[in-house]
This record gives sequence, C-alpha cells and structure tokens, in this order.
Amino acid sequence: MVYHSNFNTDAGYRSIGNYPILPLKTTHKGPAPKADPNSQDIIDEALELFKANILFRNFEVQGNGDRVLIYLTLYITKCLLKIATCNKADAEKQLFTMAQEQFTVPGDSAFPLGGMITIPSTRDATDGIRQSLTQLRLELGVRLVQRVYATDPARPNKWWIRINILVLFGGYMSNPSTPLKRKKTEEIIKNGNGDHPVATNAYRELKRVNTVNYAYQESNGHLKPLNGFVTPLLTDMYQITMAYSLWKNQRHNIHTVFDLYFRKNPFRGEFTVFAGLEEVIRFVSDFHFNDDEVEHIRSLIPDCDQGFIDYLKTLTSKDVTIYALKEGSVVFPRIPLIRIEGPLAVCQLFETTLLNLVNFASLVATNAARHKLAVGKDRVMLEFGLRRAQGPDGAMSASRYSYLGGADGTSNVLAHCFFSIPVKGTHAHSFVTSYNSVSDLVDKTLVGKDGKTYNLFDLALKYRKEMGWTITNESELVAFTAYARTFPNGFLALVDTYDTLNSGVPNYLCLALALNEIGYKAVGIRLDSGDLSYLSKESRKMFKTVGEKYNIDYFNKFQIVASNDLNESTIHDLNRQGHEIDVFAIGTNLVTCQAQPALGCVFKLVEIDGHPRIKLSQETNKVTLPGRKTAYRLFGEAGHPLVDLLLLTPTNASSSPDEIPKAGDKVLCLHPFEEQKRVIVTPKAVEELHIKVFDKGQVMTNPLPSLEEVRAFCLSEIQRIREDHLRASNPTPYKVSITKKLYDSLHSLWLESVPIREMK
Amino acid sequence: MVYHSNFNTDAGYRSIGNYPILPLKTTHKGPAPKADPNSQDIIDEALELFKANILFRNFEVQGNGDRVLIYLTLYITKCLLKIATCNKADAEKQLFTMAQEQFTVPGDSAFPLGGMITIPSTRDATDGIRQSLTQLRLELGVRLVQRVYATDPARPNKWWIRINILVLFGGYMSNPSTPLKRKKTEEIIKNGNGDHPVATNAYRELKRVNTVNYAYQESNGHLKPLNGFVTPLLTDMYQITMAYSLWKNQRHNIHTVFDLYFRKNPFRGEFTVFAGLEEVIRFVSDFHFNDDEVEHIRSLIPDCDQGFIDYLKTLTSKDVTIYALKEGSVVFPRIPLIRIEGPLAVCQLFETTLLNLVNFASLVATNAARHKLAVGKDRVMLEFGLRRAQGPDGAMSASRYSYLGGADGTSNVLAHCFFSIPVKGTHAHSFVTSYNSVSDLVDKTLVGKDGKTYNLFDLALKYRKEMGWTITNESELVAFTAYARTFPNGFLALVDTYDTLNSGVPNYLCLALALNEIGYKAVGIRLDSGDLSYLSKESRKMFKTVGEKYNIDYFNKFQIVASNDLNESTIHDLNRQGHEIDVFAIGTNLVTCQAQPALGCVFKLVEIDGHPRIKLSQETNKVTLPGRKTAYRLFGEAGHPLVDLLLLTPTNASSSPDEIPKAGDKVLCLHPFEEQKRVIVTPKAVEELHIKVFDKGQVMTNPLPSLEEVRAFCLSEIQRIREDHLRASNPTPYKVSITKKLYDSLHSLWLESVPIREMK
Repeated sequence: MVYHSNFNTDAGYRSIGNYPILPLKTTHKGPAPKADPNSQDIIDEALELFKANILFRNFEVQGNGDRVLIYLTLYITKCLLKIATCNKADAEKQLFTMAQEQFTVPGDSAFPLGGMITIPSTRDATDGIRQSLTQLRLELGVRLVQRVYATDPARPNKWWIRINILVLFGGYMSNPSTPLKRKKTEEIIKNGNGDHPVATNAYRELKRVNTVNYAYQESNGHLKPLNGFVTPLLTDMYQITMAYSLWKNQRHNIHTVFDLYFRKNPFRGEFTVFAGLEEVIRFVSDFHFNDDEVEHIRSLIPDCDQGFIDYLKTLTSKDVTIYALKEGSVVFPRIPLIRIEGPLAVCQLFETTLLNLVNFASLVATNAARHKLAVGKDRVMLEFGLRRAQGPDGAMSASRYSYLGGADGTSNVLAHCFFSIPVKGTHAHSFVTSYNSVSDLVDKTLVGKDGKTYNLFDLALKYRKEMGWTITNESELVAFTAYARTFPNGFLALVDTYDTLNSGVPNYLCLALALNEIGYKAVGIRLDSGDLSYLSKESRKMFKTVGEKYNIDYFNKFQIVASNDLNESTIHDLNRQGHEIDVFAIGTNLVTCQAQPALGCVFKLVEIDGHPRIKLSQETNKVTLPGRKTAYRLFGEAGHPLVDLLLLTPTNASSSPDEIPKAGDKVLCLHPFEEQKRVIVTPKAVEELHIKVFDKGQVMTNPLPSLEEVRAFCLSEIQRIREDHLRASNPTPYKVSITKKLYDSLHSLWLESVPIREMK
Repeated sequence: MVYHSNFNTDAGYRSIGNYPILPLKTTHKGPAPKADPNSQDIIDEALELFKANILFRNFEVQGNGDRVLIYLTLYITKCLLKIATCNKADAEKQLFTMAQEQFTVPGDSAFPLGGMITIPSTRDATDGIRQSLTQLRLELGVRLVQRVYATDPARPNKWWIRINILVLFGGYMSNPSTPLKRKKTEEIIKNGNGDHPVATNAYRELKRVNTVNYAYQESNGHLKPLNGFVTPLLTDMYQITMAYSLWKNQRHNIHTVFDLYFRKNPFRGEFTVFAGLEEVIRFVSDFHFNDDEVEHIRSLIPDCDQGFIDYLKTLTSKDVTIYALKEGSVVFPRIPLIRIEGPLAVCQLFETTLLNLVNFASLVATNAARHKLAVGKDRVMLEFGLRRAQGPDGAMSASRYSYLGGADGTSNVLAHCFFSIPVKGTHAHSFVTSYNSVSDLVDKTLVGKDGKTYNLFDLALKYRKEMGWTITNESELVAFTAYARTFPNGFLALVDTYDTLNSGVPNYLCLALALNEIGYKAVGIRLDSGDLSYLSKESRKMFKTVGEKYNIDYFNKFQIVASNDLNESTIHDLNRQGHEIDVFAIGTNLVTCQAQPALGCVFKLVEIDGHPRIKLSQETNKVTLPGRKTAYRLFGEAGHPLVDLLLLTPTNASSSPDEIPKAGDKVLCLHPFEEQKRVIVTPKAVEELHIKVFDKGQVMTNPLPSLEEVRAFCLSEIQRIREDHLRASNPTPYKVSITKKLYDSLHSLWLESVPIREMK
C-alpha cells in the first residue's frame, strides 16, 4: 500500500505553481515557515514512509504534499547511496555538501520528476523553489543521519542501505555495497548518460530501474532501443524502395492501420507468450533517420529525388499511434499483438524491424514458458545457452526473454549486468581435468568457521577412508578440494568427469563432510551426462545414507542440478520416470528454439484511408482480417479465459463500431472462416486486450514495466489459462472468434475482391 | 599483378632510415634533388601505376622506392576523394591546401603506414621526412589535377574517381559520389575513430576496407570486436568462479593448450564452413576487463580476495598464442578449428565467448554454402531473413555469414551499411493492396528516355487491350504503374497479390511494354506463393510469347525471383521438377538454420604444463584427442583433398614431435578410435592447415582478410572438395585421421585414466 502525504489536504500553504512551501522543523535558512515542533513535518513523513513507499512502483499524486514527498523519497535514495560506506561523521559531511551541490529544478531538462511540478515561469519563482529544495535537502540530510546511525556511529544501519539497494537494483543484490552499480547510478543521477551507446543503454536501463518508482520522463521524452543495431536501417531494402515510390506517388501520408500477428502457435502448442514490446516502443519512440542514415539511403537509390531525402530527414513517429497487448501476455493466433496506426510510409518502414523484434522474443519467451511448465513450479529452471546461441545478441535476447517466460536464472554474466537476471554457475570438466595429482594443490587449507586453519584435503581423505571409497579418482578429489576452499559457502561440484557414482558423488561427499566438520554447508552436485533419472536417484540415496551415518540432516537436501542437452520432451520423460533433480539447466534447446526456430509473425495492412483492406491468399488461413479491430478476452465462471473476440473499431467515425461485450450479456462469437463454427458466450468477466502504448509520438506508459514486472505478469497469465490449452501433447485449441459485424465485413470484402471468373 | 617502383634498385639516393629522398621534377621547394626532366620520377610512376596497384591487396615492399610509391598511392586515394565533385580550379586549390595541412609522419601513432618506414630517431630526421613528404604531396597534387581534368576542366574524369571508390568500398557502389561513405572515409583519414562504439566499429570496418591495400596497423596495435556486446562479461558465470578458484589455488598461470572443434557436421552433411574467426581475433586482441567490468565481477563474488580483483585488472591476452584454420575453410569433425595456447585462467575465460562467436557463424555459413550448392553457380541466391532472424544481431550475423558462405546479397540494409553486402529488394503485397483504384494514381506520367513526357498508365492500358487481358486486377495495374514510374530502370514486380498468371504477370507485361515503348527495360518479376516450378515456367512462356509478338528480345530474359519459404530441399525438388527461376530469395530457413539450429562446437583442454590431457566419456565419440596437435590436408592426384591428418606438435621441446607428411611420401593414417580403420596415403600435395593468427598479444595478419576475400576463399575451397562429400543426400564422409604417434599417445593415456575396476 502506498502512503500519501498528510500535507495534501491542507491548502493553507504558500505555493509556487503546484509546489507547496511546507512548514519545517529546521535551523537551516530558507523559505519554509516554522513547523510545530511536536508534530510531524514533511521530512519526518518522508523518512517514516520511505521504506514502505519505495517498494511501490506507481505513486499517484493526490495532492501537492505528495510532490514534495516524492522528491524527498528520491533524494533519500541518493543520500543512502552516498553514505553506504561512511561512518556517521563522514556521512554528515557528505550530505551537507550534497545538499548544496548544484542540483536540477523543475524546468531543467534533467530534473528527474519532470511534469510532476509546474515549471516556474519567472526567475524569482525558480529561485524560490531552489531555496526551498536546498532547505529541505539540508534538513533531510541531518535527520537521515540521525536515523541511519542511531545504533552504531561507525556504520550505517544495514536495513536502510539494503532496502535501498534492493529496490534500486531489482532485488538481486546480496551485497549491499555493489560498488559498480552504485557508481553507475551516481554517475547517472549526476551526469546523465555517457556516450557509449551500448553502455549508454545499459545505463539507461539502470536509470529506468532506478527511477521506476516515480513518473520519470527522459529529458527529450524519447526512449532509445537497448540494442545498438536497432536503427531505421535494420530493415529490408524493399521498405526503402517502397517508401520512395509511395512518396513519389504522393501516397506516403495516407492514414493506415497495420496488424502485427501470427497465424499458428509455435512448438505444436496452443499458446504463445508475447514479448519484445518494450524494444518495439523504444525503437518507435526514437524513430528518425540521422544524416548518415539518410546519406546511406541516397547511396542506395542514387537517382532519387532530393525531395525524398528531405522528407526522410523530417520523418519521426509523431503521427503514429500504437495499441498492443501487454508484454508477457498469453496470446493466440490472429489476434493483433500490435496495431500500428499512422502514415502509410512510416508504418511500412516499421515492418521489418518490428517483426524482427517481436518474432524471436516471443518465440524464446514461449519456449521458456513451455520448458518451465515441464520443469514445474517447485523446481528451478536455468538458461545455460550462451555458447550455442545465435551470436552475441542472439544470446542476450535469449537470456532476457527466457527469463521473461519463466526461467529463474541464466549463466550469462552480461545478461545479469544488463538485465539484472540472477546468474548461476560453478565449474567445468576442464577445471577437474586441469588437476593431475596432489602435488597440484599448492595450499590444502581452509579457515573454518571457528577461525582455525584446517587441512581440508586431509579431512576429505579421512572421510574417504572411513567410507571405504578407495577407488575414487584422486585428481578429482584434489580439484574438488581446490574448488571447495575457494567457495566454502557455495560448494557445488560437477561430478561426472570420471565416473559419477563411483568417483564424483563419493568425492563430493568427502568434501561435504570435511566442510561440515569445520562449519560450512556444501550446496550440491551437477550431473552433465548419463541417465539423469537413475543417477539423480542414486545420488540422492547416497546423500541420505551418508547423512544418516553421520547424523547430518541437510545432506538429504543437497541440490541436484542436471544439464545434459535437456529439452521439453526429455524433461517430461524424466518426470514420468521419476528423478531427484532440483534444478534443470537448459542450453541449446531453450535458446535456439531447436524444436521450431522461427515464429511466423506477419505485418499486414488492414485499413487505408478509413477503408478496410483484405489480403487474399489461396490458403484461407492466410487471408487477413480486414479493418481496425480491438480484442476482448471473455472469461468463464472458473476465472479461465474462454474465448478471445475481435471486434471492429473503425477509424472512420461514420462507420458504426461494434458493440463491446459485457460481463453477463450474451455475445455471438464466430469462427472467421467456418460459418458453422459459432458459439454464444455469456462471459463472467470481460477484459479489453489492446492498450494504447504510444500516442502520436508519445510513449504512454513511462516508465515501461520492468523485466521483473513483465515476467511476473507472464507467470500470472499462464496460471489463468486452462491447463488443457497448455498441455504439451495434443493441447486443446483456444477459441479466437470474431463478431458478426466483422464476419460480414470480411466475407463481403472477400467476395468483392474475387470476381467470378469464367473457365474456358 | 603488382607493379613495383623503378627506384627500388638504385641505392644512390640519400635516405633517412629506409625512407629515400628521391629526385623530383618539381618547382616546389624541398629536399628532393632535381630529376632528369625527360625521365619518369616517382610521382609519374605512382600516377601511372595507381589504377593497377590499387586493385591489389598485398603489396610486398621490395625496396625503398616502394615505400614512397605506397605512400603516394594512398595519398592519391585521399586526393581523389577530396576532388570528386570539384572542377579543375577548385581541385587545384583543395589539393594545394591539403598538401600542407597537418599530416602524420612515421612515429606518429596515427601514421597510416606504421612499421613500413623506419621511425626517425632525431627531430631533424623527422623534419626531413616531413619536408620531403610535403614536397611530394604538393607536386603530386599538381600532376594529379593535370591528369584527372585532362579532358574536361568542369569535372573530374569519371574513371579515376570511380576506380578509387570501387576499390575503397569493395566494388559495390554504382554511384561514384556516395557522399556518406566519402564523408566517413574522410573523417576517418582525418580524425581517426568517433566515439560511438557500434558506429566506431562500422567506421573501423570501413577504415579496414579502405586501408586494406597496405599493411595497416591500428595505433595501439589492438583490434576491437564489431559487436558491442562482445566483452569479457559475455561469458558463463562458471568461467568467472573457475578463474577465481584457479587464482586462489595458484593454478591460473599454468601454460595450457585448448582445442575448439566440433564432433559432427551439421545438417546431416559431411562438411562445414568455418566462420567467426575475425570476431574471435578482435575479441582476443582487445581482451581486458575495464574497471566497471571488474567491479561487476566483484559484485558477483562479494567475498572474493582483493588480490583476484587486482589480477583481473591486469589481465590481457599478451601471453596467448592462437593457431587457427583460415576463416572460410571447409572443415571436418575433430580438427581443431582454433588452438588456444596460454595461461589456464585466461584460456578458460575465452571459452564461452569463442564458442558463441564460432558456433552460429559457422552454422550459418555452412547453411548458406549448402543452399548455394542447391541453387547452383549460375543462379543467384539472396538472404531475405531479417524479419525472422534471432533478434537484431542474430540478423546481422546471419547476413554476414550467409554472404561468407555463398549468398550473393541480402535484403538487410544495415548489413549493407556495415559489411558492404549487396542489398536487394522491390516491394511487398501491402504496396499493391494499398492501391484501390485509378483515382489513387495522382500522377500517371513518366519522362521517357527521349525526354518527352508520357502517360505511362494509358500506355499500359493500351497494351492490356491489345493483349486482350481485360480481367487483370486494375488496382494491381495501378500499383505497378506507380512503382514503374518510380523505378523505370529497375522495374521488378511482385506478381502474386491477386492471381499470378491471370493478373500479376499480364499486368507486369503491360508495364514492361509501356516502359519499352519509351526507352526503358523492365527487369523481372517476383513469385512469392504457389507452385514455383509451374508458375515460373508459365511466366517464362508468357514472356516469350509477348516478346515474340512485339519483337523484343530481352523479354525472354526477364528475371524470375522466387521467395516463398524456400529451403535446401525444396530447391532440390524444384531443380528435379524443372523451373525458370533465376534468383532464389531465402529467408527463415537460411538465417535460423531451421534444419539444425545449433552447431556443437566444444572447447577442450588438451595439454597442461607440457603434459597431454584427455577428457573421457562413456560415448567414445566424445573422448578428446589429447596433446598439442597440428592438422595437415593431404591431396590426391585430381587435386581434391583426400584426408586431414592430425599430428602431435607438443609444446614441450623434450617430447619429440611427429614427422610432417611430405608430398610423394607414404604416410599411415589411422582412425582415432577404430584401429582396423587405417590407410596408407601417398599425397600429391600437402598443406598445413593451422596458421598462427595471434602471437603473444599480437595479431599476426593485420589487416585481417576482408569479408569479400574470405567469401572468395570459401567458394574456392568448396570447389576443391570432391562432389560426393558435398552431396545433399547420403554424402561420403571425409576422412579425418591421426598419426601412429598420436594414436599411441591417445590410447595409452586412455588406458591410464581408466583403471580396471572389479565387479562385485
């Protein structure tokens, strides 16, 4: 729950625009009137509510007090970053300095809460706000230090720092000091972006995460794609030649509507996860040809008119409006995932790039969702595909969208860096084979939890002897010792280099016992070959036996990670056979979508100048649904979606729109092509699926949802779908229907376009 | 043939280091002695030989005269770029100014021919070279203008400008003015790189192309990856944890050898095209962790020792040496594509990134080669996969490596921009459906070759009537007219929007006849649906019939482009059925490698501290070949490769190396695992396959071969392979063998590592 300011209601304060000069308890000079020393002022409030409010993304401004509250909350995050490693005295100094450093005020392009506070119209007004903010910053610094160092003047209270870091960085940082990210964040807060585009985008991403709690607007109101290759030149040549021809024939500015959709669910399934929208919005938001790009086009069409070149230079997305399903939605064939409305030439120039951005993203997200369904909610799925992915960005996209679709982590360090996806990994076979004998172990010791130094290798040998495991591979034991003394708190061993059950698992257990003796808990094993069902079950048995022998409970719960060329169907097979695997690490099959490496999204013109257009095909399935359409999802009694219904919502005001389905009312749903397939539905609930995400050049939802949010939405969406639609084999098709009005429009246009021909 | 300087042999000239002060015919002041006015001086020579020499890539310096010749040749290219749009008077002024502008001399880091001219050791020597170069530049400017404006003082001779542009930009620019590229090149020559990394890399790529004629060295001697995501963090987490453990156990600096290879050819074939090496070399050359990256790692292993962090900060590839097969080679299982030698931890940190860079690149290149074999040498293959590729870089990689493997062009404009791959495209169905009636055609006219204005649409209608094609779709005819008047010299129409044979082809022919009447030649049609064999044959018949009726020869030769979900096997089917297709445009199946979306390259430790290492597996095929090995290709009488032979070339000087096979001598070749499979070969010729590409931090071949060169090499390689190895169905496996010495080493290590176990 978001907490609002108590200063929202009282209108008695002086204001500059909508910025109120609230009373303060302070000795610092400034415009604030004196507050009652016995009551809470806005700074008390901001500090009290900080930990609660910072956890929330959306903060609706309910009054002017909230404006100051939000400013102070954001300022607290900056202060906490600054003092994370300071003692009290240093913190006081730092915050005193910071309060008075040059900072932005409403009207500056870099002001972080642009739009939230009225831009002052006079210089005096600007100065007034600046003085008030300075006073607030100074007083806040003093009181924050009091609270954060209340128990220990030597270091800040962990909880304050931690909650700040957690929220800023999406909850993954176990280490509150994370200097890189802190540094970057500070840089960003101070300096804006760097000039390295990939890095800039990474910064931007961080910035987005960091400022996501408040309605943040980039200074120019535009977002940029994360990937440096995503430019207007990332398109097919024919889009350029068509644009030229459209311009040449004065057709470029005709208002059109295009649908982006697919015709068939991938992987022989009956559902798809929609992904890629964020990058689409970023691309569209930033859409323009820079001088170099324009000149490159000129070099491709050397004879083209200068007028076309001039036209290209002015092109932006200012006349474009986009409706889309929410990213992470579970979607079905023929429902427009994205509906693009705008000038013909611009829409056409979007086609290839949008398809590129949606096709692979949705394919991987769907693949991940299917794999996660196979793995099951109670087990962990990791994406380990970097080495086999389609090049560097194929890998980055795969990591990002696998996570969106349900993966719980990745092995890809750069994906962690960019997207804050949890990252996992232990060691490879080569690490084990790089050890040959005991003499390779320069140092055998480890300091135990008790602070004493132990010979870890000798301890392991002792248990090896006790257990009678004399034939385990000694060089493997040496390698495990080397690894365990590096990561005593996170020891997870790859056990199949020589012989899983005769060497790897026993050697692992020797080290686990040795670590246990000196106060550490081993974590588990990874199996990378062989019969994973059998080996996991046998390993679990050995864990139990040894745990019981030495009376150690947690041995029974050692993690078993499996990672050998897994895919959806082998996981289903394993589930049927039974296994003891806790974590499935899936590589090639997940990231390359081996089972079906392409999703066939298309981009089709459906309305031009107010008139519906149809694209025919000898294959009925490829005929387009003409006209501007909006989708509704109709839910049944049990809360599951029953049917998606497309209805006509024409641009042309003179065409009467379809009636919007209502909960409790009967609605006739027709199959688009088979007239006998029809059904009357009385929905328990109705949801409109299309949301306006971009309105004549403006991003509607800013900040865009974070990857974490989209992932959570995706998982909740999958939960809502009836299980038989999700089933791996022979799933039930989900119904996608159209209204009677759309059906009639489709079929009359169809007949019109195909005149009866005579046969000779 | 490269032409060398006549001033190489005469040693009588004064020199500064190896830079000779050659006699000149000039009135410009400077250190040059007066030349005989009746003989050629070095400037005459440079201008005479320019057009010949600039076509060559490799120029071996045979004497000091060549050093000046190369400098002048490079300077001519700069001059020509400068004056490309000038008249004679302006050109004189421009070149006079340019000659004296600040320029670099040997010793400056930006001097373009670093290494070729001795760096002068004294200030006087530097000044001497600078004065001489100034004199040369001034005189060259004067004489170049005389030649370039010999026929027309108003504009430069096309041929001079054109050959320059052609060579600089890889031969694709039909338009000599190409201002973007010229601008970029000038910027590069003047300013070095920009600071936009993707763009920087694009510039760098251009720069490489531009300077490829001479032994160019980047100022710091390091190359950088083209893709901004290719950083040391693009790796699996376990490489980082392993590196830490290796460091912690003082194993990080042990000298190791790793092999990167695959075990099975993709696509059920018996050959593979090796690609991705350039990006690997760039990555390795630039390998280092910057401060942000180090801090990111610290955040991942929060408890790690500061010493490890310090170690990471110093890491480079300075102790790494790499041997590799040539990029574009036809390769076979188990032959190391890349052999990496260096400190254990560094090699390990390369693993994932190298696999990522080689796997997809080689897979796509192989896929393209297979598709091109199906298409045939006499027909054209285009890559049209951008919209279905695996994200933006999946697409960029796919375009790049498809071209390398044999595609003749792409639809991807950005790939043209970055890699100078020829780009193709016409229009889409939506272009056709965007026209509804004649009233949509605002302007029906086109200026004919005779300069008169014609009503193109009426002309088309006239022919439509003459041919009796009254039922063709009129809105399609309108759309074709719009397109034809935009591209009268390049009219190629998509003919299947409504009905290929009853509407599309007839409408196309109406426009082709109309264009013909006013002096233009149409180009052809694209078929995107239906039975491509039948439709292409019927279309060809119609071309012939109409061509004969109107007595127009070239109608018979209209291009037929096919583009409907093509893949290797459908192309083979089409070939069997017969067809009239000239150009195959292949999308999804080419770029996603639908038939097998991953290549399984692995990266295995084969030698450590001078000792061979083996990695065992229950699958014999997965057992590694231990030891440092070099591959030789043995050729038979007919010039085809017979067998690839791996032999031992241990790091350890005390181990005796294998005998290198010689042409004409018998050599015993053994199957690595099946002792009865052995053969004695007497090769007609022997080639060593492994080339040192990186030597202790230094790139060996700089500049790296261009994409164009690698592609040419790949195509020539494929020509050499016996056809039965290349066959699409049931190809003959190519033999990969090992020497007796390697066989013995492998099998004795194997037995050592697997002790005989007792069964209970």
